[in-house]
Amino acid sequence: MAEPTRVLLDESRIPRNWYNIVADLPAPPPPPLHPGTLQPVGPVDLAPLFPMDLIAQEVSQDRFIAIPESVLDVYRLWRPTPLIRARRLEKSLGTPARIYYKYEGGSPSGSHKPNTAVPQAYYNAQQGVRRLTTETGAGQWGSALAFASAQYGLTCEIWMVRASYDQKPYRRSLMGVYGAKVHASPSPVTSAGNKILAEFPDSPGSLGIAISEAVEVAGQHDDTRYALGSVLNHVLTHQTVIGEEAVEQLAAFGETPDVIVGCTGGGSNFAGLTFPFFREKLAGRMDPVIRAVEPQACPTFTRGTYAYDFGDTAGFTPLLKMHTLGHDFVPDPIHAGGLRYHGMAPLLSHMYELGMFEAVALGQKECFEAGLRFARTEGIVPAPEPTHALAETIAEAVRCRESGEEKVILTALCGHGHFDLSAYDRYLSGEMDDFALPQERIDQALATLPGV
Amino acid sequence: MAEPTRVLLDESRIPRNWYNIVADLPAPPPPPLHPGTLQPVGPVDLAPLFPMDLIAQEVSQDRFIAIPESVLDVYRLWRPTPLIRARRLEKSLGTPARIYYKYEGGSPSGSHKPNTAVPQAYYNAQQGVRRLTTETGAGQWGSALAFASAQYGLTCEIWMVRASYDQKPYRRSLMGVYGAKVHASPSPVTSAGNKILAEFPDSPGSLGIAISEAVEVAGQHDDTRYALGSVLNHVLTHQTVIGEEAVEQLAAFGETPDVIVGCTGGGSNFAGLTFPFFREKLAGRMDPVIRAVEPQACPTFTRGTYAYDFGDTAGFTPLLKMHTLGHDFVPDPIHAGGLRYHGMAPLLSHMYELGMFEAVALGQKECFEAGLRFARTEGIVPAPEPTHALAETIAEAVRCRESGEEKVILTALCGHGHFDLSAYDRYLSGEMDDFALPQERIDQALATLPGV
Repeated sequence: MAEPTRVLLDESRIPRNWYNIVADLPAPPPPPLHPGTLQPVGPVDLAPLFPMDLIAQEVSQDRFIAIPESVLDVYRLWRPTPLIRARRLEKSLGTPARIYYKYEGGSPSGSHKPNTAVPQAYYNAQQGVRRLTTETGAGQWGSALAFASAQYGLTCEIWMVRASYDQKPYRRSLMGVYGAKVHASPSPVTSAGNKILAEFPDSPGSLGIAISEAVEVAGQHDDTRYALGSVLNHVLTHQTVIGEEAVEQLAAFGETPDVIVGCTGGGSNFAGLTFPFFREKLAGRMDPVIRAVEPQACPTFTRGTYAYDFGDTAGFTPLLKMHTLGHDFVPDPIHAGGLRYHGMAPLLSHMYELGMFEAVALGQKECFEAGLRFARTEGIVPAPEPTHALAETIAEAVRCRESGEEKVILTALCGHGHFDLSAYDRYLSGEMDDFALPQERIDQALATLPGV
Repeated sequence: MAEPTRVLLDESRIPRNWYNIVADLPAPPPPPLHPGTLQPVGPVDLAPLFPMDLIAQEVSQDRFIAIPESVLDVYRLWRPTPLIRARRLEKSLGTPARIYYKYEGGSPSGSHKPNTAVPQAYYNAQQGVRRLTTETGAGQWGSALAFASAQYGLTCEIWMVRASYDQKPYRRSLMGVYGAKVHASPSPVTSAGNKILAEFPDSPGSLGIAISEAVEVAGQHDDTRYALGSVLNHVLTHQTVIGEEAVEQLAAFGETPDVIVGCTGGGSNFAGLTFPFFREKLAGRMDPVIRAVEPQACPTFTRGTYAYDFGDTAGFTPLLKMHTLGHDFVPDPIHAGGLRYHGMAPLLSHMYELGMFEAVALGQKECFEAGLRFARTEGIVPAPEPTHALAETIAEAVRCRESGEEKVILTALCGHGHFDLSAYDRYLSGEMDDFALPQERIDQALATLPGV
């Protein structure tokens, strides 16, 4: 065993700070606006939903934010996560490229989501909050927040999109194991839910409806706050523990990255991996190409527009300046539920406008093909979301085979696919769709932009 | 962060040898017998089913067996596995005991099974075998062998008990992701299967039937061999990588174990953890109490008898001297499918007769309660099998709370429970049974022993 396959770090190497990239950008991102006044939202607007420490982080200009000791103490249940060289994948591709993946699927809930769920639960508990509400689609975020809430003795109440609630019972069960209360959304326990149910008793629900329900309940109770799993600045910042560790681990391999690839839904996984590398690049210590991969069924960067839009379907949230397909846009039912979001993190959208990274869109069949190849060579079955990053990683490695370039490619495997095996079944049986997205559908949804 | 929570080892610390405890026992275990001649079975009898290297390991007297470089190369995808101190569990129990668990759930298929699946696939591939057959119940073993077969380019064909095939589609899917062919057993592709189907077209199958089908196909083809996931000596020996790492890791924590607890079905997980500690104990370097935990629904050690019996229900295998409830015994449908085996590894049975360890039997509700407590404190959701070890670990820690003893307790968390969440649902909904096992059922099954 000459060269290493995995670089593991001792728990003393868990980062002590989150990295806030806002401090290093040439221009600040445009602020969220209050939809009524069209003025930037302030702490007072957000206080019913979030604890003050998280609101402060949301607008912070500090380069580093210290991670509380109590959060580090939970992180050490699974962090640092391994950085692994995909030798068997490389061999199967016959590529001279060297492929490294940061694996976040070993966390309690099986994805990168606990990296932010834990501090969110912590800051809420510190402020005396007793209950957290949130929405979840496929359940990655909900199960992470359920786990984090259990760590801090918080009640966790989750509105899960009815279609997923019925089709993905195991993710719902996982939330129950962690002690969370899970409602199928639309639910009869909120006025938002009741309103929908009165009109559409068989509604399959949507993330937009579920957000409305969770926000409604949080806003009505002094001891309750709302938690969001992606999109916002503080969420992206919490995820930078991924990239900070990877910077150290890649150096331990003796490597400098040439290409960094991550999948984007709301953007938290991509930001978590790449922000520390952006810092190194801005400082002139390395010069990787950085590339976001999104699904062709929800091509926010590659076919969306950069404009102020609502974060939810119903239009209850502040207006966010972001790449969006329009808040009315309903993506086709691809299996990568975590990438089916009409918008994109405002911070990443801003950076994309600054020309700091590339973006490509891939069809889901190519992605599942990559997931299968990865499972059969490297062993880990990837969740549908990171198969997008793997497919682009493989495409890059194949280009290297053709050009003879020995590029160093880094990617993030942000979760395992043990809850997504029915999707693999569909791929293997040849029944998977590779949805085409006609331009008219995008144009129609963009026509509903608030025009701010 | 003063004291460590996890001890991770660098991949250079993967053990280079498997430990064969037979070399250190005061007496050799009784040999398997040919059911026709009642003479010890020899290599010629086993050659149609297993490659020669594994047959040699099965009867080896060597203390250490070198792990081939190619097997080490696959092990490094997930080994060494972490040894974790369960600080949050300790805290929730208010115990002065210190609890350590060796976590095997980070392997590609999510359990300890690949530790033997990989070398079995390797030795078969070395001998020119092209196809492996096996049976699987809940699917842990089948998915491990499917993964290992993919690593060595072998075709893998698995007979999965029909009831599990229908009820646990995700484990079946996982085997498919790794490229294996999965048959519902009884199947129409074997004469054993056809015979059953002719009589019982709706047969839910059994492990015994599935073994018969897999063995039948292996015996009929020169390029095909059969693989078994527990019970046999070579399987137990392969699993000792678990304990060898744990010996080193516990020493790195500065600890000596007082109590070691493992669950037993066929015995491979328990043997894998404990054999290296037995060696240390026999050498006088430590003196832990070692305890096997079995389900009350299948109490092989605590209520079975020590006698020659068949390994399968149909009576096709050699006769094994072991603790058995009788090969006709059908355990109640507890969720820990991996512990529903009528017999026990002959090597462990022999050691139990020598008085080398204790055994206790627990009801499944107590085990799921322990699994829930573990998930909510330590984050990882345990598979139903290791919840038995966790329940006994917790009971021991509670006894320490009462006595004030600061015992060091070591256990093995041999797999995660992401494929078993419906079982947790049943527990949480109050619908779980804690099957009573009347003595008459055991007596009836024992009456069918071959009487050798």
